[in-house]
Amino acid sequence: MAVRSKFDNRPIGIFDSGLGGLTVVAALRRRLPGESIIYLGDTARVPYGDKSVEAIIRFAREDVAFMRSRGVKMIVAACNTVSAVAMDALRSDHLAEPLLGVIDSGVRATVAAGARRIAVIGTRATVNSDAYRRGIHAADCSIKVESIPCPLLVPLVEEGIVDGPLVEMVLDRYLSHLKSAPPEALLLGCTHYPLLKEAVVRYFDGRTRVIDSACACASAVADFLCEHQMAAQADNCAVHGYFVTDMPAAFGRHAARFLGEVPERVEQILLG
Amino acid sequence: MAVRSKFDNRPIGIFDSGLGGLTVVAALRRRLPGESIIYLGDTARVPYGDKSVEAIIRFAREDVAFMRSRGVKMIVAACNTVSAVAMDALRSDHLAEPLLGVIDSGVRATVAAGARRIAVIGTRATVNSDAYRRGIHAADCSIKVESIPCPLLVPLVEEGIVDGPLVEMVLDRYLSHLKSAPPEALLLGCTHYPLLKEAVVRYFDGRTRVIDSACACASAVADFLCEHQMAAQADNCAVHGYFVTDMPAAFGRHAARFLGEVPERVEQILLG
Repeated sequence: MAVRSKFDNRPIGIFDSGLGGLTVVAALRRRLPGESIIYLGDTARVPYGDKSVEAIIRFAREDVAFMRSRGVKMIVAACNTVSAVAMDALRSDHLAEPLLGVIDSGVRATVAAGARRIAVIGTRATVNSDAYRRGIHAADCSIKVESIPCPLLVPLVEEGIVDGPLVEMVLDRYLSHLKSAPPEALLLGCTHYPLLKEAVVRYFDGRTRVIDSACACASAVADFLCEHQMAAQADNCAVHGYFVTDMPAAFGRHAARFLGEVPERVEQILLG
Repeated sequence: MAVRSKFDNRPIGIFDSGLGGLTVVAALRRRLPGESIIYLGDTARVPYGDKSVEAIIRFAREDVAFMRSRGVKMIVAACNTVSAVAMDALRSDHLAEPLLGVIDSGVRATVAAGARRIAVIGTRATVNSDAYRRGIHAADCSIKVESIPCPLLVPLVEEGIVDGPLVEMVLDRYLSHLKSAPPEALLLGCTHYPLLKEAVVRYFDGRTRVIDSACACASAVADFLCEHQMAAQADNCAVHGYFVTDMPAAFGRHAARFLGEVPERVEQILLG
């Protein structure tokens, strides 16, 4: 008798505090076009990065509860802040659905790249959490890791400024000490940064390998679904749902830059 | 019988979504050292600027209710977003305490300056609300007003970057079209911007009068208290209280740049 593989057409749940997680959605849709996706942006409380750990855990639990209410098959925290400080709390809730954080997948991709000297750039909150360095060193403590907070990059991306002299000057402010001897790999440790990938590659004249955390996260999801026979059928007609907690119209307008297309429909929900 | 003037030693309540309103506190403390101040920064929900009008009104009502619970004699919305979109709603609540918004006082100072051609700079939310232009035109519709959103200035100030080539390049991005023929007056329509006042003056080589909205607000409060015989006694020993809804320690660390000194004590409260 032939072994028949299982499949699971339920949607994947992806959440973030705002728009950034859409880079993960975009990467996942490119990689797994048959998977349906439920996205939640907690735009009423964005950003999470400057809130307390207690507040972030509370918000994340509410985000997860919403994802579960929509019948998702797995949950992806496409929010660096949640991934950095709330994953242990979420795991202690013993959810039935597997849970993946964008930091874990970024760490995995970085270690797999085999670089011995790595720079990680992120928001101040992500860098202060030290989560990327801890994750990389848990895998291999001989890798040299420098974590660099780049707080002006998110405002630039949100303004649609992703190249040109201003981006170059801001990158230079944060990365000039690395220019003469670039690290072997540089991890974009923020879901906004994939939009700056080309600018960062150019800044180092292609002399460092730039790892895109959104693509890394999409790869990790694809691998997980494959390993656990949870992927959708090849001919599944994917249906996506976008939810926010405030300002659905503004979200729809800005989403295109991150997603590569205007979302069909954005619904507002109430959390908290 | 000599007329004896009344006095009122109760504190003035000042609220904002975060740190910015502290520039108003600083200006008020310089101007009226005998007045006690209760400050509230709603740091659990900062920033207000990218939230919906409904959410902002709800937050503002909760902020005001807290101010009132502390027995303040007047309430100052040192938040441009609240002043732009929530003042009518707050006024419809018929509060016993007089209510002043930072936009009204900025408009008053700008009109009083007698300039015929004015530029107003602010966040995207403030500029989109059109509140400054409407206020100025309500007083004198012949004044030429150009409103310019400068969304990168708040992130710069919050990073402590208030001069140097990066500030100059960002200002140039927003204001270069005004450089050859500067407006007679430029209003800093955001409570973060007083920290950039010198940079803006320098950018225009002193050829435009820069109006500081924090000082304008402090003047309006002083005038109101004087007119209504509500000022504190000259020898009153002022006591200040700082309250936030999240992250009191971080607030205390960052406050010094806005306030000119480290606040003695910052207490956390729960709203909402």
